[in-house]
Amino acid sequence: MANTTQNLDWTEIAAKVQTRLANSIPAEWRIPHDKLPPDEQLDVTGFPKESKILTDTELKITESFATEIVGAVAAGEWTAEEVTVAFCKRASIAHQVTKCLTVIMFDEAIARAKKLDEHFTRTGTTIGPLHGLPVSLKDNFNVPGKPSSVGFCSWALEPTMHESTIVGMLRDLGAVAYVKTNVPTAMMIAETVNNCYGRTVNPHNRALTSGGSSGGESALIAMCGSPLGVGTDIGGSLRIPAACTGIFTIKPSYGRFPHFDARSGLAGQEAISSVHGPMARSVADLRLWAESVVNAGPWLKDPKVIDMPWRQVELKPKPKIAVLWDNGMVSPTPPVKRALRKVVEVLKSKGYEIVNWSAEGYQEASELLAKFFVADGGKSVKKILEPTGEPFRPEMEAYDKAKELGVYDLWQLHKQRTDLCKRYLDRWAACEGLDAILSPTTPYAAPKNGDFKSVSYTCIFNILDYTAVSFPTGISADKELDVYSSDFRPHSDLDEETRKDYDAAAVHGIPVSLQLTGRRLQEEKMLALTDKIVADLA
Amino acid sequence: MANTTQNLDWTEIAAKVQTRLANSIPAEWRIPHDKLPPDEQLDVTGFPKESKILTDTELKITESFATEIVGAVAAGEWTAEEVTVAFCKRASIAHQVTKCLTVIMFDEAIARAKKLDEHFTRTGTTIGPLHGLPVSLKDNFNVPGKPSSVGFCSWALEPTMHESTIVGMLRDLGAVAYVKTNVPTAMMIAETVNNCYGRTVNPHNRALTSGGSSGGESALIAMCGSPLGVGTDIGGSLRIPAACTGIFTIKPSYGRFPHFDARSGLAGQEAISSVHGPMARSVADLRLWAESVVNAGPWLKDPKVIDMPWRQVELKPKPKIAVLWDNGMVSPTPPVKRALRKVVEVLKSKGYEIVNWSAEGYQEASELLAKFFVADGGKSVKKILEPTGEPFRPEMEAYDKAKELGVYDLWQLHKQRTDLCKRYLDRWAACEGLDAILSPTTPYAAPKNGDFKSVSYTCIFNILDYTAVSFPTGISADKELDVYSSDFRPHSDLDEETRKDYDAAAVHGIPVSLQLTGRRLQEEKMLALTDKIVADLA
Repeated sequence: MANTTQNLDWTEIAAKVQTRLANSIPAEWRIPHDKLPPDEQLDVTGFPKESKILTDTELKITESFATEIVGAVAAGEWTAEEVTVAFCKRASIAHQVTKCLTVIMFDEAIARAKKLDEHFTRTGTTIGPLHGLPVSLKDNFNVPGKPSSVGFCSWALEPTMHESTIVGMLRDLGAVAYVKTNVPTAMMIAETVNNCYGRTVNPHNRALTSGGSSGGESALIAMCGSPLGVGTDIGGSLRIPAACTGIFTIKPSYGRFPHFDARSGLAGQEAISSVHGPMARSVADLRLWAESVVNAGPWLKDPKVIDMPWRQVELKPKPKIAVLWDNGMVSPTPPVKRALRKVVEVLKSKGYEIVNWSAEGYQEASELLAKFFVADGGKSVKKILEPTGEPFRPEMEAYDKAKELGVYDLWQLHKQRTDLCKRYLDRWAACEGLDAILSPTTPYAAPKNGDFKSVSYTCIFNILDYTAVSFPTGISADKELDVYSSDFRPHSDLDEETRKDYDAAAVHGIPVSLQLTGRRLQEEKMLALTDKIVADLA
Repeated sequence: MANTTQNLDWTEIAAKVQTRLANSIPAEWRIPHDKLPPDEQLDVTGFPKESKILTDTELKITESFATEIVGAVAAGEWTAEEVTVAFCKRASIAHQVTKCLTVIMFDEAIARAKKLDEHFTRTGTTIGPLHGLPVSLKDNFNVPGKPSSVGFCSWALEPTMHESTIVGMLRDLGAVAYVKTNVPTAMMIAETVNNCYGRTVNPHNRALTSGGSSGGESALIAMCGSPLGVGTDIGGSLRIPAACTGIFTIKPSYGRFPHFDARSGLAGQEAISSVHGPMARSVADLRLWAESVVNAGPWLKDPKVIDMPWRQVELKPKPKIAVLWDNGMVSPTPPVKRALRKVVEVLKSKGYEIVNWSAEGYQEASELLAKFFVADGGKSVKKILEPTGEPFRPEMEAYDKAKELGVYDLWQLHKQRTDLCKRYLDRWAACEGLDAILSPTTPYAAPKNGDFKSVSYTCIFNILDYTAVSFPTGISADKELDVYSSDFRPHSDLDEETRKDYDAAAVHGIPVSLQLTGRRLQEEKMLALTDKIVADLA
C-alpha cells in the first residue's frame, strides 16, 4: 500500500480515496443523485428522516442520547446490532449531504455489535458502561488496518498498524467504532477542509462551516449520525466545531484523557499539548464518556495520563462566574454578543455572582500559539506533503512560509508561555471564589465556509491548559435582532473584516454556543456547572 | 550591582564572593584556622560537637528530626529563635569544613524566628505546620535581595528581585529560611563544584563528593546543619547527593510540588522537567514537608502544579518489588551490590514478593537525556558564562562542544522519549501488582571528588517522570567485604573505569543508599513504602 501511494500524484490519490469512500457505503443506503437535497437546500438536518432509509425505530434510536442508548441496550430493549445498523445508516446519509466521513467500518462494527449481543444474551451482563454504543472517531485516531490521513493525501491510502490507546479502551468499555470523520489538513485549520476528502459543511446551513478541526465529528453528531464522537483540541479543535453546530464538548486538561498514539500533523510538538475529548448532544453524554474512560485507569496505558479517578463535585448554590465580553482582538458577532448578554442576565436572575473578566493575555496567547505551531519551519507538514506533490492549502500559508527556530529560541518562548500562565493564574486566584469564566467560544454563530478567521477565544485555554466546555445556549441567531450597532468600533483590521463577513440572513436560526472555562483539571466541575447552567437557562 | 558584575572578571567575582561569604559568618562562630580539622582529617561529622561552639541544648536541637523540632516548638518547649540560632551556628561550622553554603541569611532568619515566637506567645498557636523550622534552600531558589548564582560567577553578585513560589509557601507554612546551599555550574554536574564558590565535599569523607547538584544541601544535612532542605532534580540531583551522604529524599513527579520561578541554568528546557523535593534525615521529615506543601494548595500559586491533595495510602501487607540489579551500563560497585543483595534478602524474609527487572530502556534514556540537555547547543550556559569571561568547567565539555538542534529535530526526540515512556509503562502494567522498583541510586557508595561518572541509574526516572526515593539502607561500605569479584566482566569502558576508580579503603564506613521507584505521581505511596522497608530493615 505504501508503494502504491509513492507512485501516485496527490490528485490521483484524492480521486481514488473519494471513490473508495463512496463505494464503501452499502448500495441500499446510497441516495441517487436526483433524490439528494439540491445544492441550494442549505439546512439538511431533516434529510435523514426525509430520505426514508431509516425505519421509525431507527430514527428514534439515532435521535436518542448516548446515555439513553446504553440504558436501552443494557435493559435488553435494543440490541447493539440494531443500534449500530441505525447509526451506520444515518451516518451514511449524513455523509452524503455534508461530506463528514473519511473511513467507513460498518462491517466490522456490525460484527462486533453481534458479538456484544451474544455476550449479553449469554451472560445477561454488559461488558462495560459503553456496551453497544456506536462511537465515531476523528480521522487521526488509529484503527489497525485503516488509514489515518489527517487530511494528507500521502497518508490516505496507507493503513496504520497501530491502535490509539483510546480506541482500544473504548472497545474494552463496550463501544462500537464504526466511522472515522473528516479533518482539515494536519488538523491545523479551524474549518474542515483538505485536498484529499474535500470540505465538510454545516448541516444547519451548508454554506457555513462545521468548524474544525473536529468538524467531521460535529457535522455527523449534529445530524444525529453519531451519538458520541471523539475529537481533539490544540487551539479550539473540539470547541470550535461544537460551537458551529450547536453540540456539547469538553476540552480537558492535558493528561486527563488518554491520547497516546493518535496521529498528529505536528508530531512531537509539545509546547502546547493536543488533548482528546468527547463531543455529543448533552452534558450527560460527555460525562458518560469521561467517567467511563477515566475510571478504566488510563494511567496504566498512556504514560502521560494523570493517576486521578473521576471525582465527585459539589457546586456552590450560587456559583461565581467571570464574564469575558470581548477579547479585545475580535468582537463577538451580534448573535454571540446577544447570547452572552442573555445568558448572563438569566444567571444573575438565578443568583449567580457575576463579575467582569479582562482580556489581558489573549493577544499574547494567540501570538505564542502561532509561533509554537510553526517553530519547526513547517518541516513536519512539508515532509508529509512532498511525497505526493500535494500543495499547501491557502489556509496553511504560515506553515509554508515559516522559518525554523533553533532550540534556544524555543526555550525562550517556553519561558514566556509559563510566565503568561502564572500571571493568568494569579488573576484567577485574586478573584476569590471564582468558579469559571464565561466567554464566547468563537466570534461567530458559524461563519461561511472559508470565513473562520480567529481562534483567539479558544486558543488561550490551550496555552493555559485549562478545562473548557462549549455548550449551546438554546439561543439561535436572529436576523432581525442580530445586527452590528452603528457605533461599532473595530479593534483591528481583522475585527472590521469579521464585521464585513457577517451575514445576518445566512446565520439566521443557527444555534449560538458559549464557552465555560475552569482551571486545570476541573473536568468534573466544569461538566457539573455546565449542567446547572443549561438547566437554569431552560 | 549588575554594573559591578559587568566590570569584573570572573576570578575577581569569585574572590569577592568567597570573602563576602566568609565574612557573613558571625565572628564568634568562625573557627580559627589552627582549630579547624586538618586537611588530612577526612571525616568531619563529629566536628560540630568538637568545636564547642554549640551548647548541649543546641547540639540536641540540631540532632533532632524536623518532626521533633516542629513538635517541640508547637509545644512551647523550644522557641523558634533558639532553634534557628542553633542551626545557624551548626551551618556555620558545617560550611567551614565542607564549603556547603552560598548565601547566609542569619539576621533575617533570627528576626523572623522572633516574630514567630511573638505570635506563638500572643496566640498560643503556630502559624502553620512548619512553624519555627529552619529550612535550607538550594542556591537556585530565589529569595528577594539575595543572589541565586547557580554556580555562575556572573550571577553571584546580583540580587534577585523575585521570590520562588516554594520560598513564599514555606514562609507561609512557618518555616525559617536561613541559608542557601552550593551547587555545580548550571546544576548540570553530578558533583557540587563551580568556579565561584568552589567545591563542596562529603562530610563523611572529604576526599569523596557530596554528590550533585543538590550537594550543598546533602553535606549540610548530613552535618545536621539543617533539619530539612529543598533541592531539585532533573537527572538525579536530589537522589545522587542524598545517596552520597546517606540521607533521604524524594524526587516527585512533575507538577506535584511547586517549582515556579526557581532559577535554572537551562531555562525553558522542558523535554525533561526539573522538579523540587525535600532532603532530610528521615522519611517522616520528607512527609512533613510534602504533606504541608501539597495541602497548602500550590495549584493556586504555580500554574504547573496538579490539583491533587495529599492522599492516604494503604500498602499491601506483602508488597511486590522488582529488583534492577544492574543497568547494563555501569555495574554497581561492590558496597552497592552487597547492600542491594542484603536488602532483597531481608525483604524476601519478610514476605515481600520479589521479581527481577530488566535493564531495558536505561541506555536509551541516558542517551536521550544527554541530547535534550545540550539541544540549545549550550547557548544558555554560554550566555551566562560570557559576560565575566568564566571558562567552561571540564565537566561541562558537552555544553561547550554541542551543536544546536532545530526544533524539528527536537520534536523527533520528544516522540522517541514518549515511546520509551510507553514501552516502560507497558512493562510495568504487565508485571501485575507491581508496587515499586528497587535499584541502586548510583553505582557508588560515594566516589572520590571528580570521579562521579554515571547518572544512568537515576536519570531514567526523570525521562519517565516517575516518583523515586533514595534511602540509606543502614548498611555501610566495608573494605573487607566490598571488593570486585575476580570474574568481573565490565559492560563498557566506563564500567571498567568505575572499577579502577573504586577504592575500598576510601569508601570504608560510607552509608550505602538505594533507590525505590513508583509510577508517576505516587509520592504518598513511595514514602509509605520506604517507611515500611526502612522499618523492616531495622
